[in-house]
Amino acid sequence: MAATDGKSNKSFVLNKPHDVSFEERPVPTLSSPHEVLVAVNYTGICGSDVHYWEHGAIGHFVVKDPMVLGHESAGTVVAAGDEVSDLKVGDRVALEPGYPCRRCVQCLGGLYNLCPLMRFAATPPYDGTLAGFWKAPSDFCYKLPEQVSLQEGALIEPLAVAVHIVGRQARVTPGQSVVVMGAGPVGLLCCAVAKAYGATKVVSVDIVDSKLAFARDFAATHTYKSQRVSSEENARNIVETAGLADNGGADVVIDASGAEPSIQASLHVVRSGGTYVQGGMGKSDITFPIMALAIKEVTVRGSFRYGSGDYRLAIELVASGKVDVKKLITQTVPFESAEEAFKKVKTGEVIKILIAGPNEK
Amino acid sequence: MAATDGKSNKSFVLNKPHDVSFEERPVPTLSSPHEVLVAVNYTGICGSDVHYWEHGAIGHFVVKDPMVLGHESAGTVVAAGDEVSDLKVGDRVALEPGYPCRRCVQCLGGLYNLCPLMRFAATPPYDGTLAGFWKAPSDFCYKLPEQVSLQEGALIEPLAVAVHIVGRQARVTPGQSVVVMGAGPVGLLCCAVAKAYGATKVVSVDIVDSKLAFARDFAATHTYKSQRVSSEENARNIVETAGLADNGGADVVIDASGAEPSIQASLHVVRSGGTYVQGGMGKSDITFPIMALAIKEVTVRGSFRYGSGDYRLAIELVASGKVDVKKLITQTVPFESAEEAFKKVKTGEVIKILIAGPNEK
Amino acid sequence: MAATDGKSNKSFVLNKPHDVSFEERPVPTLSSPHEVLVAVNYTGICGSDVHYWEHGAIGHFVVKDPMVLGHESAGTVVAAGDEVSDLKVGDRVALEPGYPCRRCVQCLGGLYNLCPLMRFAATPPYDGTLAGFWKAPSDFCYKLPEQVSLQEGALIEPLAVAVHIVGRQARVTPGQSVVVMGAGPVGLLCCAVAKAYGATKVVSVDIVDSKLAFARDFAATHTYKSQRVSSEENARNIVETAGLADNGGADVVIDASGAEPSIQASLHVVRSGGTYVQGGMGKSDITFPIMALAIKEVTVRGSFRYGSGDYRLAIELVASGKVDVKKLITQTVPFESAEEAFKKVKTGEVIKILIAGPNEK
Amino acid sequence: MAATDGKSNKSFVLNKPHDVSFEERPVPTLSSPHEVLVAVNYTGICGSDVHYWEHGAIGHFVVKDPMVLGHESAGTVVAAGDEVSDLKVGDRVALEPGYPCRRCVQCLGGLYNLCPLMRFAATPPYDGTLAGFWKAPSDFCYKLPEQVSLQEGALIEPLAVAVHIVGRQARVTPGQSVVVMGAGPVGLLCCAVAKAYGATKVVSVDIVDSKLAFARDFAATHTYKSQRVSSEENARNIVETAGLADNGGADVVIDASGAEPSIQASLHVVRSGGTYVQGGMGKSDITFPIMALAIKEVTVRGSFRYGSGDYRLAIELVASGKVDVKKLITQTVPFESAEEAFKKVKTGEVIKILIAGPNEK
Repeated sequence: MAATDGKSNKSFVLNKPHDVSFEERPVPTLSSPHEVLVAVNYTGICGSDVHYWEHGAIGHFVVKDPMVLGHESAGTVVAAGDEVSDLKVGDRVALEPGYPCRRCVQCLGGLYNLCPLMRFAATPPYDGTLAGFWKAPSDFCYKLPEQVSLQEGALIEPLAVAVHIVGRQARVTPGQSVVVMGAGPVGLLCCAVAKAYGATKVVSVDIVDSKLAFARDFAATHTYKSQRVSSEENARNIVETAGLADNGGADVVIDASGAEPSIQASLHVVRSGGTYVQGGMGKSDITFPIMALAIKEVTVRGSFRYGSGDYRLAIELVASGKVDVKKLITQTVPFESAEEAFKKVKTGEVIKILIAGPNEK
Repeated sequence: MAATDGKSNKSFVLNKPHDVSFEERPVPTLSSPHEVLVAVNYTGICGSDVHYWEHGAIGHFVVKDPMVLGHESAGTVVAAGDEVSDLKVGDRVALEPGYPCRRCVQCLGGLYNLCPLMRFAATPPYDGTLAGFWKAPSDFCYKLPEQVSLQEGALIEPLAVAVHIVGRQARVTPGQSVVVMGAGPVGLLCCAVAKAYGATKVVSVDIVDSKLAFARDFAATHTYKSQRVSSEENARNIVETAGLADNGGADVVIDASGAEPSIQASLHVVRSGGTYVQGGMGKSDITFPIMALAIKEVTVRGSFRYGSGDYRLAIELVASGKVDVKKLITQTVPFESAEEAFKKVKTGEVIKILIAGPNEK
Repeated sequence: MAATDGKSNKSFVLNKPHDVSFEERPVPTLSSPHEVLVAVNYTGICGSDVHYWEHGAIGHFVVKDPMVLGHESAGTVVAAGDEVSDLKVGDRVALEPGYPCRRCVQCLGGLYNLCPLMRFAATPPYDGTLAGFWKAPSDFCYKLPEQVSLQEGALIEPLAVAVHIVGRQARVTPGQSVVVMGAGPVGLLCCAVAKAYGATKVVSVDIVDSKLAFARDFAATHTYKSQRVSSEENARNIVETAGLADNGGADVVIDASGAEPSIQASLHVVRSGGTYVQGGMGKSDITFPIMALAIKEVTVRGSFRYGSGDYRLAIELVASGKVDVKKLITQTVPFESAEEAFKKVKTGEVIKILIAGPNEK
Repeated sequence: MAATDGKSNKSFVLNKPHDVSFEERPVPTLSSPHEVLVAVNYTGICGSDVHYWEHGAIGHFVVKDPMVLGHESAGTVVAAGDEVSDLKVGDRVALEPGYPCRRCVQCLGGLYNLCPLMRFAATPPYDGTLAGFWKAPSDFCYKLPEQVSLQEGALIEPLAVAVHIVGRQARVTPGQSVVVMGAGPVGLLCCAVAKAYGATKVVSVDIVDSKLAFARDFAATHTYKSQRVSSEENARNIVETAGLADNGGADVVIDASGAEPSIQASLHVVRSGGTYVQGGMGKSDITFPIMALAIKEVTVRGSFRYGSGDYRLAIELVASGKVDVKKLITQTVPFESAEEAFKKVKTGEVIKILIAGPNEK
């Protein structure tokens, strides 16, 4: 008898914009000896989930058929294929919600997040993790150490986003000054990861006072509230606020907002020879100070999801106490309240809301 | 008796926009044992020289006092300080026309082109090289090998710009595909340097048929004439023309035009995980496809002048026959015709024009 | 009816040291939709093949059961799985003879040559390619362009070794000086690849005059015959021979010999801040000038087989005419003469010998 | 009247091995507008100082004329040249005791520690810092923040050595495992810097129990006492002790001992694709497991002194509380006791001993 016999696979399904339903779907069965089946215990909601819920699409990814939402989850292994050696039934795991083809040039080159055949949860046409069970290759499920809870496990996903931005793309090193535009969950986590990478000055920039207050308490050494002035003037203010004039500006600037004025100011804040990373998502095309980039020989990198080693390091940062992701959890609600949770995230009144279940733990 | 006694230091001076004159100025005298004095033999004209001549300013660099023009020069050593061991009177040298403070964080870190105290020829308030003599630290004067002529020596400057763009910033490696936007002198040299770095496909893009024809003859494996269509469509055409679809686009895209439509197309031509370098100078702020950069995790770098090792490699590329800079010289005119030369460059009817003298060789 | 029905899978099997036999083995059948079956047409012999033939072991890899030899092969696709889209029956391919697990940290990180679960041809307990047919994942079989012959295809393997050493590990850039210790097939190919990477000086070092003569003709700009003197003195001679004193030594030194005196001299030839790559295989432990490494801040890297992109670039170098691997083929013998071919390689009287078949082309 | 009029420049001079004396030497006068004159307040003793004191030479650096010892110093600015803008009389500074030519290829390339014309304190023929005054270019004197004492300032030098080893050469990143061979001052500081760089496991290895106890208290997460067994067995024990088997060994291994058995074990401890840095000084030539390096594709780098940015970061690590260098100071003695201090260091009964003065603070 399989561990899932008679089990419900209740799923939270987006049918079309603002039209969601709970459905019983068949429990997945393992189709490869390298796979595990995981009972989902906690799931966080991300801005992209909310965007699909509201608009039914992100860019050219369009929800055509009903799709299960959710991709920030942790759960418990209930079945493991014959060749799975590093996980066993009962293990608590964080789920990396996309897995690549393993055969293309990007995959073989170690950049699997750029795999054109990536199957990513809650990105059409692939179902997400707000369901009873999630089936995945075992190497994309990461065992949580004892001291990391399942709720924290659900926050490994956004933390891995921040690790990818700060560690892999911005390549922050000890002693550097880092300015982070935007104090949403990813921006806050970028501040915390920058500190864990040894940044001495971490400046959080936003337009909402309460978020800046949270940022200061959470990880930032300085904060700055953006004003309705030119991007050059906001940049000068940031440099002054954080005492970066002697350094010629910030060593690293990260955009975690996607907002045009923030991106513009970023290029004026970063020093000659510094690094800028575009982490936030926003308008496709913006007015951009390209000559500032050229003359200062700024290195700019995009950041897309997470790749090799990012999940592992994210878990390590939580396990070692360097990043306290629990502080970001404003509230945990039962699975049945999933839609209300989406509404709350949209209003912006919470930092991170977790949906418990559908499997209790 | 000094080698320069009784010598003329005739200089080509910009007084204000479109107002130039020839002046006799005092011959410089060595003020450090590490300096050499060089009699200038040949000087090329660069777009930035023409811009000062026309507008009296580039960005916040404004010509307030009369300034000698010119910064692409080669000449002959006529005097050397006591501590100069690697150059002697009579040596033919290419002049690196800017020298840094050697003491700031950028200089000590090996990025002297970003030195805030850089003294750069023909950038106000510093005089340029269109004069009888040029005084400089000996390590910024590079001895030409026998097989490299003084005319070629005057082209080492723009070639060093291309080496910096292609080698240091784009970091082209063998087998890569490289698209170069703009087929002016720097764009053409970027094509040639890309080939020297082992690029298999080198695509030159411009709007002028004759330039593309020259590019193909000089170094490009493919050419594309930009159309008055969207940047996405131009990008698709470039990918198709050069057979880059299987590769997901070009490995490297270099802008040597500074033109907004070219920059936009560039971000759509470059593949996921590829590299884009902003080499050309143009408008400060442009409409820019920032999300293409983010989602494809493009690495973007600015490129500003040239730095450690670039001149040395540029000379080596000419000496070994890998880049034939002579082909770019449309015409050589006497020093007295300097103003006419500037007018010709402005009309675009020449690729590179050299001014001989004022010291004959 | 399958393409291989009734076909022979004649295989050249090592039973124990110096004891080989030809065996009819079952034709492999595809076990995954991503696999192809390839009829083997040409196979080169490598020093490691000869070492197994003589000693039955390399280090802790011991031949316990009869094992098919050979791993430098090219062939023709005779069957392709349902999910193979980039290869079809009739395509001529170079075979990358090892394939990794795709799931471990090394594989996901882009370093699949370090995969601990690598299955590598003719490395016990895995059979090699000196057989009628070879079954492999399609992404480890590379289609040869029209202008590359099957004989050349068999030489892609050692060329990929050289690409990995010179490009990935030594990271040679244009204008550099490169010294290569050893003028066997891999050393010669390292010379050629160094030139393709833009090295200006390529120095081949060996103890056999005829090899040095070949090296000079093939790719080296300078050669040096090692003397029975101290490693410091050999190093001084190499520096003098190649005119490297002004540079403080060679930018890059590559060992493709595995010989203790060569390795010792290498560390004395390389300049301060230069790079040394250990490509050759030899004694486990040697006397090594560790303080030269420390004080000069030499970067040393090992090189093991080849990884992501290396085969692709090797084929490109042959297709573009930058490396003429045909020159290395001393002789081609029929499959039935395989054992004699091994004997010839052992005597050192050939550079590279190819075994044709067992499938004619 | 100059600030130094009538001041003593008492100096601790090595005449020949074991023969030292105190001498009054003339107070240096500024010879460049970029220089400062510093009254020396505290100086630490390094193993290399002791080596000169005992043997009169290190390698080919031989003390021929009497030479002032000492190079780990902090002091107070007493005079500043006209062009010095970032320091003023009264500033407390850490002294970087070597300064380069600023003109060679290494200097211009950002690797000034490899400058062949380096003038380094207490390296013949250059005098050291155990004197009343030290004259230096202002960019090689670093202002101490308020919260950093002059005693701590004297320890910036060995900390910069560790920063160079761990940060620049080993390039440790968060989450890595780092094994440090040797628990002398530099080894201990390497442990602390590794932690500051985010290493999760830091393993100190030595042969002296008391040093290991100190290491564990200071910065190490694990310790291992080397046994008189093979290097392979010591390596296996280290891997087991620190729980590194799943990782295939340590990500990074640093030798800060110079001892042959430690270096041998290091190459067996480091994982495939890991990094080894030779920081310790010892015998010129040792028996070395070269094939382990090759097959695991280990990256090995030497480390020599410190370079661009290292002093700045060292001060930042102390100022931010990440490295508590005070703990290393076993004792502070008056200038007159300098010789006794050397004797104590030689016996090994102290970790770091400071010599106060000759100028009181």
